[in-house]
Amino acid sequence: MPTADRKTTLIQYMSEHSIDLAVITSPTNVYYFTGFYCNPHERFFAYVVDGRTGEETLFVPLLDRAAAQEEGSVSRVVGISDTEDGYEVLKREKGSGVHRIGLEKNMVSLLQGERFAGLWPGCGFDNIEEFILSLRMKKSEQEIGKVVHAVKLVEQVLDHAVKLAVPGMTELELTAELEFQMKRLGAERPSFDSIVLTGARSALPHGVPGHTPIENNAFLLIDIGVKADGYCSDITRTFLMGEGTKEQESIYDAVLNANLLGIAAVQAGRPVSVLDDAARNEISRLGYGEYFTHRVGHGFGMDIHEAPSISGNNGLIMEPGLLFTIEPGIYVPSVGGVRIEDDVYIGEDGQARVLTSYPKELTRLG
Amino acid sequence: MPTADRKTTLIQYMSEHSIDLAVITSPTNVYYFTGFYCNPHERFFAYVVDGRTGEETLFVPLLDRAAAQEEGSVSRVVGISDTEDGYEVLKREKGSGVHRIGLEKNMVSLLQGERFAGLWPGCGFDNIEEFILSLRMKKSEQEIGKVVHAVKLVEQVLDHAVKLAVPGMTELELTAELEFQMKRLGAERPSFDSIVLTGARSALPHGVPGHTPIENNAFLLIDIGVKADGYCSDITRTFLMGEGTKEQESIYDAVLNANLLGIAAVQAGRPVSVLDDAARNEISRLGYGEYFTHRVGHGFGMDIHEAPSISGNNGLIMEPGLLFTIEPGIYVPSVGGVRIEDDVYIGEDGQARVLTSYPKELTRLG
Repeated sequence: MPTADRKTTLIQYMSEHSIDLAVITSPTNVYYFTGFYCNPHERFFAYVVDGRTGEETLFVPLLDRAAAQEEGSVSRVVGISDTEDGYEVLKREKGSGVHRIGLEKNMVSLLQGERFAGLWPGCGFDNIEEFILSLRMKKSEQEIGKVVHAVKLVEQVLDHAVKLAVPGMTELELTAELEFQMKRLGAERPSFDSIVLTGARSALPHGVPGHTPIENNAFLLIDIGVKADGYCSDITRTFLMGEGTKEQESIYDAVLNANLLGIAAVQAGRPVSVLDDAARNEISRLGYGEYFTHRVGHGFGMDIHEAPSISGNNGLIMEPGLLFTIEPGIYVPSVGGVRIEDDVYIGEDGQARVLTSYPKELTRLG
Repeated sequence: MPTADRKTTLIQYMSEHSIDLAVITSPTNVYYFTGFYCNPHERFFAYVVDGRTGEETLFVPLLDRAAAQEEGSVSRVVGISDTEDGYEVLKREKGSGVHRIGLEKNMVSLLQGERFAGLWPGCGFDNIEEFILSLRMKKSEQEIGKVVHAVKLVEQVLDHAVKLAVPGMTELELTAELEFQMKRLGAERPSFDSIVLTGARSALPHGVPGHTPIENNAFLLIDIGVKADGYCSDITRTFLMGEGTKEQESIYDAVLNANLLGIAAVQAGRPVSVLDDAARNEISRLGYGEYFTHRVGHGFGMDIHEAPSISGNNGLIMEPGLLFTIEPGIYVPSVGGVRIEDDVYIGEDGQARVLTSYPKELTRLG
């Protein structure tokens, strides 16, 4: 959704649900509405919309006031010094007559909830988090432009890694090289903990890179992403070090087929569940069903996990603006795992636009 | 506090406060009591102590059950599959008769609170977070051993950075080199976002490394830490690139004096506030009082910010086991900033043990 429509849509939602005050405190949600990003650590930080008047106010640590005024779209910015109590400042600004507050109930702690209840005794809390996440789920062209940039960076990083990977180098050494390259290219940070796994370790569900040397005649699984200009990318490619075996080839082919069929099933108007079904049915047909142990993908954007969940029980109807991964995998204990992950966006025409373009045919390295 | 005493102390606290059930969900707090670390993402994860029977139970995602049994100290581990509801499993295990639950009220969300209240209607919530943090504040010798290791690593990283820093290299390039070296040396990750700032930018309160080239005749401020084996280190050194000016020298000397006086004031039995006073009085005496804009330090350990806060209004009495930074700074807009930060532990004799040993006299680079 374009930035200009976000506040209007929120105020309409508040009106429909008789919410007097929306208090938004998650830094990414505040950024979504205001264009200002801040990690306030323990300090008071909130974007507040008054449903009674339509006024918006951004409460920020005093140190960040100048930046908030410069970078954000909110004209009323209230700076809170370290000696002030942010809740008291909020109460002073908003006065009494607040009966229902909209909060992100999954973000706001019990202690914070007690403070709000103390400011306006007897007030009720509405959870506005799901509504905000549903807005964030539909990306604008401008947001997709930023994702495309983050994808471009991570594919350069992957290309760099492929050139360096040799048997004997450890998973951690290759991870360090990858993350160094991310920073060199100007990414803010990895969008999640980078995964580099060799051999049988590539089949570990929660595997993290370790001091294990990269093996020959074995899979090398690389799952990485970067955050750049506030938006994430996420890609997985699995390579064969050396020649490998027929079994490894057939596992790879099954995952690649599933990846292609999952992407081919993208079509606005159909339920999200068909994507998981398409990939899973293919893997089952080829006899590896029990080794595909996770959903086929997840939405992402400013956060690496966002709505929609691309799972077999999500009946959400696909529509333009959704952005998600398609990442089937097969993990055979003591043999190894293969995952092939692409980033997919649904365009205005209702069709898939695959944002990742790194080659997917089986590639041998080393 | 040694691991073996932690649960006993918690049960005693629960008994004094009539708490039937303690439900601990912060990964670092769970690690503190059980020796098992897990990032459960959105899955249900809790260390539960039953004050009625003294029993302890660790609830983990099914995928992590084997690791929890192997690495943790808790004999009863309950794995929860993705199709189960963790709250229902907890209720089934613990039955009825729960009237007061001890929770980390600053960690537990309103939604989670609603789930607990739904399991045991009418139950009250007690905040046990401050109590847990007060236990964590006093480090054991074993914990300090891990911090010493993390300090050793970060000082090697700093040494590496010093050898690479030359005018013209950008802040981000040096940051990338630093963080690459952290991984190479085997650190898990930076313990916070690394800070590398040149020239006038070193005076920015919330400065983050950017594409600015390192200037000559200017300060270079490096504030970094690593996390290794679960524990953090945190060090700041400020260097002069090139010869610099008399003004830069006198700012540096003032900060160094303040750092030394802050450390010299450490003594069990005195209030924490004297540390801030000692550093601040010196900086004020030298005419830079208005440019020292933050508290003199913070506790740390498994998290980079823990109790105690080393500020002028903290009346807590110092005692053996406390671990914290001493990091005075002077930030003169358009000139630059200097901060010198050490990690300090109070030993059994009540005296300061300075864990950081990187030289502090003014050093010219480039």
